[in-house]
Amino acid sequence: MAVGQDPIVKDLLQFTTCDVSDALCKLKVPNGGFLSGLTLWSPQRQEGMTRIVGPAYTVKYVPLDDPSPKHPTHYIDSIPTGAIIFISCPPNTPNAVYGGLMSTRAQVSGAVGSIIDGRFRDLHEQRALNYPVFARDLSTAPPYELVKVAGVNVPVKLQTSEQDIEIRPDDYLIGDLNGVVVLPKELAKEVLPLMRKQVEADENVAKEIKGGMKFMEATRKFR
Amino acid sequence: MAVGQDPIVKDLLQFTTCDVSDALCKLKVPNGGFLSGLTLWSPQRQEGMTRIVGPAYTVKYVPLDDPSPKHPTHYIDSIPTGAIIFISCPPNTPNAVYGGLMSTRAQVSGAVGSIIDGRFRDLHEQRALNYPVFARDLSTAPPYELVKVAGVNVPVKLQTSEQDIEIRPDDYLIGDLNGVVVLPKELAKEVLPLMRKQVEADENVAKEIKGGMKFMEATRKFR
Amino acid sequence: MAVGQDPIVKDLLQFTTCDVSDALCKLKVPNGGFLSGLTLWSPQRQEGMTRIVGPAYTVKYVPLDDPSPKHPTHYIDSIPTGAIIFISCPPNTPNAVYGGLMSTRAQVSGAVGSIIDGRFRDLHEQRALNYPVFARDLSTAPPYELVKVAGVNVPVKLQTSEQDIEIRPDDYLIGDLNGVVVLPKELAKEVLPLMRKQVEADENVAKEIKGGMKFMEATRKFR
Repeated sequence: MAVGQDPIVKDLLQFTTCDVSDALCKLKVPNGGFLSGLTLWSPQRQEGMTRIVGPAYTVKYVPLDDPSPKHPTHYIDSIPTGAIIFISCPPNTPNAVYGGLMSTRAQVSGAVGSIIDGRFRDLHEQRALNYPVFARDLSTAPPYELVKVAGVNVPVKLQTSEQDIEIRPDDYLIGDLNGVVVLPKELAKEVLPLMRKQVEADENVAKEIKGGMKFMEATRKFR
Repeated sequence: MAVGQDPIVKDLLQFTTCDVSDALCKLKVPNGGFLSGLTLWSPQRQEGMTRIVGPAYTVKYVPLDDPSPKHPTHYIDSIPTGAIIFISCPPNTPNAVYGGLMSTRAQVSGAVGSIIDGRFRDLHEQRALNYPVFARDLSTAPPYELVKVAGVNVPVKLQTSEQDIEIRPDDYLIGDLNGVVVLPKELAKEVLPLMRKQVEADENVAKEIKGGMKFMEATRKFR
Repeated sequence: MAVGQDPIVKDLLQFTTCDVSDALCKLKVPNGGFLSGLTLWSPQRQEGMTRIVGPAYTVKYVPLDDPSPKHPTHYIDSIPTGAIIFISCPPNTPNAVYGGLMSTRAQVSGAVGSIIDGRFRDLHEQRALNYPVFARDLSTAPPYELVKVAGVNVPVKLQTSEQDIEIRPDDYLIGDLNGVVVLPKELAKEVLPLMRKQVEADENVAKEIKGGMKFMEATRKFR
């Protein structure tokens, strides 16, 4: 997990996605920035200690018959070092919008991981690269019969009917075993002290509980 | 897997969830008591030999705007030894209703596992505790912006449109790799001899099949 | 993974499901033959190097109140060596239509794997047999209260609202980490040279990308 020059990324790497969501809930961000349905597939399937943090580099796929013109260049050749690629695909697309060659190129560019709001493929290859991939699901088919890229580094919405949440270029994305969280860039400096305080309180509560104290008592003592 | 004083729990630990469902189907219990959608996440994701058995201790979350008052005490501080915590959450809630501190406290109380009909979080922590958790899915966000506890040790319905099935306090819950089954407490003594007979027949059928006998012939011989 | 006498099976075993889908997309087969929702459960859950290839031997379950008569014999006693069993179950059935004894018998018959368009059970047993199983989901309950077999070796449709795709007896089924693909039998000889060409091009592209070439440049060079 490469760490960019951004000191906020370095700080965020100390915390879990749950810590970030706890802080964002305190700031009244709905669902604490949680992006439901995006889970870890590579290097391992919801196992291990993978954690990625970086600014979002977004890619927007739309149906082939969408009036938007196709984006003139290939997004994969312009990834900033330290970025997390976030690919948005129309819901219920059975085909993959991301594969092994994309990760091969992303890794050379210094991307820290890819998050696919849709399906991806070439799982053996992703794991052989030891490259972090979060996604909604797998597929075997290429995308070109159904979708096209209409925008790069534009705001995209999470493709679910259960949440109304946007991922904008340079928002921070944080991914680990629990899932993926988007941290709006303008809130990054505000969440860090909130998280430090919360994590310390939780550690103290856990310690007292293990020693036999009731949860409510321990909570009152440290929160 | 702690075993309580209850001899039925000790007996049930000899059998798989499939054995229990087979017996319940013979007694005309729909779906053999199977609770669809609740799968093993900790200590491993649908791997290993985890099996939990115990009486249900239920917790009912409702939407924040539900007219029911909030339950006056925290459920986590009153768990009976040997119990399985069953937490019911309104469907399509993106936030978690269960986390690492809850398992820390549950484990100290002697609970044998937790089953979340909804989302939970802190997967690293759950696994570090080596505590069994079954759930519908993961999340990163805390529950308080969306739901509240309205009942403890009250009957709850499985949160699915595909089944109409209830979990009542002290019904037996059995969980393993295949999923979770609820065994109505009044049927527990009836299923045990049915299971013993069925498992013995299945073992004999498997042996004959491995020796080259056709399935139908082996079945007629032993069932 | 037993290989039958069929030279096409032997050739197909050199390729991934993604390779097959790439070739089928070139031949305008929708979704490149991908069968969404069918994932690897045994011998490992979406891990390892499992790959199965073989002609489909289909089994069609229908609701118990369907007017079709029940199939007169048990499908499991007539599996051709080298076949892949494909079991179709009505959608939203919480019960399993396949279990450990079926795999025990299938393995003796020389089947190379089973693909369940529905739920299966006895996961420990499937893994102990080291037998490949792909399926939609798990269950604990037997099927007989809800469904019956109405046809063996008849065409079946994938049970999803998102795709309109049929699996016919002797179509080739290919399954690996990425999922399952159906290759219509009449296209098998046509896809093999397409795949060889594509895989070679992809390997060259990957090599150039790792050496620092941009994706678009590498693609223009080799495709």
